[in-house]
Amino acid sequence: MTSQEEKAEAFRELHHKDRILILPNAWDVPSARVFENEGFPAVATSSAAVMVSLGYPDGELISRHEYLAAVKRIAKVLSIPLSADAVAGFGRTSAEVASTARGLIRAGAVGLNIEDFEHSTKRLFTARSHVEKIKAIKKTGEAMRVPLVINARTDALRYATGGSSARFNEAVDRAISYRDAGADCVYPMGLVDLDQISSFVRALDFPVNVMVRKGLPPVKDLERAGVKRLSFGPSASYAALGLLRRISKEVRGTGTYGSLLEGVLTFDELNSLAVPKA
Amino acid sequence: MTSQEEKAEAFRELHHKDRILILPNAWDVPSARVFENEGFPAVATSSAAVMVSLGYPDGELISRHEYLAAVKRIAKVLSIPLSADAVAGFGRTSAEVASTARGLIRAGAVGLNIEDFEHSTKRLFTARSHVEKIKAIKKTGEAMRVPLVINARTDALRYATGGSSARFNEAVDRAISYRDAGADCVYPMGLVDLDQISSFVRALDFPVNVMVRKGLPPVKDLERAGVKRLSFGPSASYAALGLLRRISKEVRGTGTYGSLLEGVLTFDELNSLAVPKA
Repeated sequence: MTSQEEKAEAFRELHHKDRILILPNAWDVPSARVFENEGFPAVATSSAAVMVSLGYPDGELISRHEYLAAVKRIAKVLSIPLSADAVAGFGRTSAEVASTARGLIRAGAVGLNIEDFEHSTKRLFTARSHVEKIKAIKKTGEAMRVPLVINARTDALRYATGGSSARFNEAVDRAISYRDAGADCVYPMGLVDLDQISSFVRALDFPVNVMVRKGLPPVKDLERAGVKRLSFGPSASYAALGLLRRISKEVRGTGTYGSLLEGVLTFDELNSLAVPKA
Repeated sequence: MTSQEEKAEAFRELHHKDRILILPNAWDVPSARVFENEGFPAVATSSAAVMVSLGYPDGELISRHEYLAAVKRIAKVLSIPLSADAVAGFGRTSAEVASTARGLIRAGAVGLNIEDFEHSTKRLFTARSHVEKIKAIKKTGEAMRVPLVINARTDALRYATGGSSARFNEAVDRAISYRDAGADCVYPMGLVDLDQISSFVRALDFPVNVMVRKGLPPVKDLERAGVKRLSFGPSASYAALGLLRRISKEVRGTGTYGSLLEGVLTFDELNSLAVPKA
């Protein structure tokens, strides 16, 4: 039986291997358990996919309580580490963010993403306030003896002022501050181009997270560029819902069930995903 | 604005058209909303898919409260009728089943499935006790002025005693009792063969529900045989999780993202599924 502390340390170490850490983002119990069955060493959540699955648009419209309950359901059935996307931490103050971090530890998570902008306004928080939040999370993990792995996301590439080069520099500056404040990985949202990714990694000399999206170079190129973590973001939920759309069009169109019956799980396999891996 | 009573009546009428009612089974908010967007006139839930998504194997291991909360989340975002799979009604007595029916109406559903066997033991309840439950549900719907559409499922084809012909006859006898007790549709679990389906429909002369599974004849053959309702059962969740398995194998195997990026929804499309259709 691995303790939550050991799980956190094992998850941290996965950010310092030669091979990239590929982290699939789930949104409910069976999506997480399928990823575990397929051999991923850890699983993350996607905030957008989790929130929408429960009837909330992405962001912090869901209550912290309902959000933590969703994380807990997933953590309960996973034997591998779980990292939770905590949006901007469910609160504007470091104390509120620390409270969210405590809730995540109690829910069974060993890592989290925290982003430096406000979903409702798309405005960046100051780098300084984000640094304070990162420090508060780190302190919370130490106090509870579950050293949470902090993935500090910056949305400066999207929402900082100035042209693309000014925004890139702002993202690098912010990532350096977050790294120095005690984050374990930095996550510049919006990096796709291999040259930009390489520049970012060189500027940081530290674990960097990139997200799967159209145009992202394949895993081997990311590894060569020194990227240490690749996450799916909401992509797997986009794909699963895209399949439901194709299924619907087929059944309503031709009245056949090919897409509904090919490459599927069985009833017993589905049920086995409700409980921890044997 | 359609009242819940009108929705129930509209849903009932869909069982008496020339065209078969194709009813996709969802398990969370976005799966239900995708089906609505694709033009299905109503949506159902799959008990297995809903329960597993929340960390419970199929059956009644989930609390009635948590189950009803899941139904409520889905009903809240749907403009079309929602029918909930209520397993065996969450209780052994008619009073308990009536209480579940009340909960479903309050949660926003206008129809339900109720099955005549106990999940934990796979034993059939007596036909008589199932008839009492159907009557209790009907009375509840009348008292609350939301005339719930009752889909009475029998598992006699699977769990009755005797050979296949004895089990078929038992399924027909039970379905007739359920029809005469006030059900709106009967649902013999396990029918796949077109001749058997036709015999069943002829014996009942009443709306019959069949479920998508390997070997089921295409929609046009079901319509010709007089089947009035076709449901997906848990198939769409089997398919969605099968896709996650293929995605995992591709990303871990070749390090590419084809299956993760083809035919997918966008971020805005995902978010739009968290709220009622515009």
